[in-house]
Amino acid sequence: MNDSGEVVQAEPAALRDAYARAGVDIAAGNAAVARYRDVTAEWRHPNQLGAIGGFGGLFKLSDDGDRVLVASTDGVGTKILIAAELRRYDTVGADLVNHCVDDILVVGAKPLFFLDYFATGKLDPDVAGVVVAGIARACREHECALLGGETAEMPGLYGPGHFDLAGTIVGSVAGSAIPDSATVRPGDAIVGLPAVGLHTNGYSLARALVGRDEWERPFGGDGATFADALLAEHPSYYAAVGAIRAAAPVKAMAHITGGGLLENVPRTLPADCRAVFEQARWTVPAIEVELVRRGGLSVEERYRTLNMGIGFTLVVPLGAAERAKTAWPSAAIVGWVEARRPDEPQVVVHPARD
Amino acid sequence: MNDSGEVVQAEPAALRDAYARAGVDIAAGNAAVARYRDVTAEWRHPNQLGAIGGFGGLFKLSDDGDRVLVASTDGVGTKILIAAELRRYDTVGADLVNHCVDDILVVGAKPLFFLDYFATGKLDPDVAGVVVAGIARACREHECALLGGETAEMPGLYGPGHFDLAGTIVGSVAGSAIPDSATVRPGDAIVGLPAVGLHTNGYSLARALVGRDEWERPFGGDGATFADALLAEHPSYYAAVGAIRAAAPVKAMAHITGGGLLENVPRTLPADCRAVFEQARWTVPAIEVELVRRGGLSVEERYRTLNMGIGFTLVVPLGAAERAKTAWPSAAIVGWVEARRPDEPQVVVHPARD
Repeated sequence: MNDSGEVVQAEPAALRDAYARAGVDIAAGNAAVARYRDVTAEWRHPNQLGAIGGFGGLFKLSDDGDRVLVASTDGVGTKILIAAELRRYDTVGADLVNHCVDDILVVGAKPLFFLDYFATGKLDPDVAGVVVAGIARACREHECALLGGETAEMPGLYGPGHFDLAGTIVGSVAGSAIPDSATVRPGDAIVGLPAVGLHTNGYSLARALVGRDEWERPFGGDGATFADALLAEHPSYYAAVGAIRAAAPVKAMAHITGGGLLENVPRTLPADCRAVFEQARWTVPAIEVELVRRGGLSVEERYRTLNMGIGFTLVVPLGAAERAKTAWPSAAIVGWVEARRPDEPQVVVHPARD
Repeated sequence: MNDSGEVVQAEPAALRDAYARAGVDIAAGNAAVARYRDVTAEWRHPNQLGAIGGFGGLFKLSDDGDRVLVASTDGVGTKILIAAELRRYDTVGADLVNHCVDDILVVGAKPLFFLDYFATGKLDPDVAGVVVAGIARACREHECALLGGETAEMPGLYGPGHFDLAGTIVGSVAGSAIPDSATVRPGDAIVGLPAVGLHTNGYSLARALVGRDEWERPFGGDGATFADALLAEHPSYYAAVGAIRAAAPVKAMAHITGGGLLENVPRTLPADCRAVFEQARWTVPAIEVELVRRGGLSVEERYRTLNMGIGFTLVVPLGAAERAKTAWPSAAIVGWVEARRPDEPQVVVHPARD
């Protein structure tokens, strides 16, 4: 990587171009979210907590003392087009469940139950069975009930061999155990947990930059292929976060999904704080280095489209940073919190020198 | 309708043919469900109640006394292809929410919150906004929080103008308020609530029998069109069921979705009981009469593919049937429960004479 200087959080024209080439319209996405805000601002249930833009929805059971239910719906994105093309159906289920687990983990929730939605043009029970087996496996690893689901056969909507996959998780947390990001202060440290690849974001871009004819070619050594790198399972950070929270007070967490560090970290930062990341402190997965190179992605583009090697962040007091880091072998101190003036970006990344 | 005699519940070869013509493979669906049962039988969460084949998944909060959470995920099916083609996006949201509300209503659950999944190839914020507005409206009508959702833009998976829509509802019920279908006895009455059309099932068949060129032609009088009949909103039975349960003890309920009376009513009947329906006691919507005529559907086919005019059923003691019926203006006594021998079908429909 040969970019230098700070990354500012601004309307990324170059990124819009990169995404537009891949057929994804970020402006339309933002416009849709604005519409939803209007629609949902008209009425809110009194037990609903927090904003709709959070990682998970929070719902307080009124006669339950301090219990809060946390729910999140998500999909796997166009990663499933790679899985479908290669007929490798055993990993997308764990991608889906682990993504949802990590979304509600941001508020400290323990998974209670999960429901899946599998839609296809012509139902192949073997494919559906393998996909759901992956979902069941990942649910079991979290002692999370696979409570139900829907299998939809919709000829005319999905092409041959194509399918879509989405899921909803519901978890529970004591209200008093939800990290309070208002306590984040300049000088706090940011602990990062490593990403293993793209996880479930950036696949429209990846498919534009790595052609189908390359997927089964060697990449990354040890007999691995581009497909292996592209289909690497979205990890669950549940155990890691549990170990770290047992060792150190955690003030805020973020799951680094679509929007990368630049868009996800600010969601749990006070307005008078900014996060500064030193990329020399962690390793970027080889597949992301390759995408950056092929796409000629600017620092801005790469940190808004890809996780760039950090899948989950935790803000801890500086004095507890070392304890937090040693509580989980692959955790690293990847940045810190600074005071922010109103005209400054909320996230700054200092790229590593080549 | 000119069929007569009883309808038996058997492997419907003629129906398989009708569905196969429309591109839906019922055998594959059954095979997929069998795979899921195997997969999910390996491990079950101790707080999970009931079978995965139920209308909603039940999860008991262990430290909450008698509270049970009830969850269900569903889609709108290929009804959305008609909505997309006609660019009428304002009804599918209510279809989705009301379908889910009715699914968990079968165990008496009150909706708590809802999350949606909207997936498309190229995101049009106006379309997404109208769809989500419909979801928000139907949620509000049930005082149900719209807690979150996911909007996925997936070029390459969805064709131009196409989208898919799914949702997950979570509701709550006191364990002691869940109807106990084991108490159903021969001699009980079955109260039916009217369907307004296809609701959210049978659309692959409907699209095969009513061509695109006809959708905007008059049908049903009063200036209405085939499109109006096909897109009529899936109703919520929440208020009706509440009124009836306040007036009469209800032993079992069923939401009549895919599979019709033949497959849905047995899900809440004891094995030694059968349900007998007298079709002269209710009206079949005109659009379903038309589909039956055009498709030459046998009685077996029509009652397994379409709701045929009954959207929801409630089993009540015979002595309370009249009170139940008068508690809701459009409710009707549509059948009764009889003793069943092991070799008899669980559902029998006596068609009306022409």
